[in-house]
Amino acid sequence: MKISKIEHLGIAVTSIEEALPYYENVLGFKCYNIETVEEQKVRTAFLKVGDTKIELLEPTCPDSTIAKFIENRGQGIHHIAYKVEDGVNNALSECDSKGIRLIDKATRGGAEGLQIAFLHPKATQGVLTELCEE
Amino acid sequence: MKISKIEHLGIAVTSIEEALPYYENVLGFKCYNIETVEEQKVRTAFLKVGDTKIELLEPTCPDSTIAKFIENRGQGIHHIAYKVEDGVNNALSECDSKGIRLIDKATRGGAEGLQIAFLHPKATQGVLTELCEE
Repeated sequence: MKISKIEHLGIAVTSIEEALPYYENVLGFKCYNIETVEEQKVRTAFLKVGDTKIELLEPTCPDSTIAKFIENRGQGIHHIAYKVEDGVNNALSECDSKGIRLIDKATRGGAEGLQIAFLHPKATQGVLTELCEE
Repeated sequence: MKISKIEHLGIAVTSIEEALPYYENVLGFKCYNIETVEEQKVRTAFLKVGDTKIELLEPTCPDSTIAKFIENRGQGIHHIAYKVEDGVNNALSECDSKGIRLIDKATRGGAEGLQIAFLHPKATQGVLTELCEE
């Protein structure tokens, strides 16, 4: 597969409003978009950093996977997302053929209109890994 | 402070040799440097991804902070490092004046000849954050 860059880093927070002052007023980033992804039960805030992004993820209800992540591990870095240039579905087939366990067998819709799929952290030394394409 | 990009993402692994095949043969990155940072009791492997890097961190002894991290939380993303363009020591003063708790009050030497300093994860919603400069 051909990965061109880290598309974004997902960070689990209990509250976007409480987290944003650190990212905007201390680190100096600018939040350019806040949207809710109903299917994933998260509210997301995006900030640009160089040619990649920070995605703050706030649970919208207690049974959101992000709520469970925070309950188990506390707030913190949740996943890394790579931008794939030659098709995420191709990349998933390649991963599968190389014995990498998948969470998603095909792409689905994510925030910012991206098509996304996750690899299983058990196959990636504990790093929840998203592959995405525009 | 002026941050230009994510300099690298630090990922804690039990073994660089066991992790590299995933990064090199599945994701297609290339490891261009492996070095030991004695002071931090870690062996590090660097891979380029777009204009940022993945830094794999392997503990060199059981009392390494990376060994303790893995013992407590398992392998996974350990820290995010931002490249600061207008001086890390200036950035630390700014953080301090804005009430952001610091781990390091001044820069120290890190891998790849960088000058680095860490902010405290309690001040950054659980994200261990490194500031660095060349």
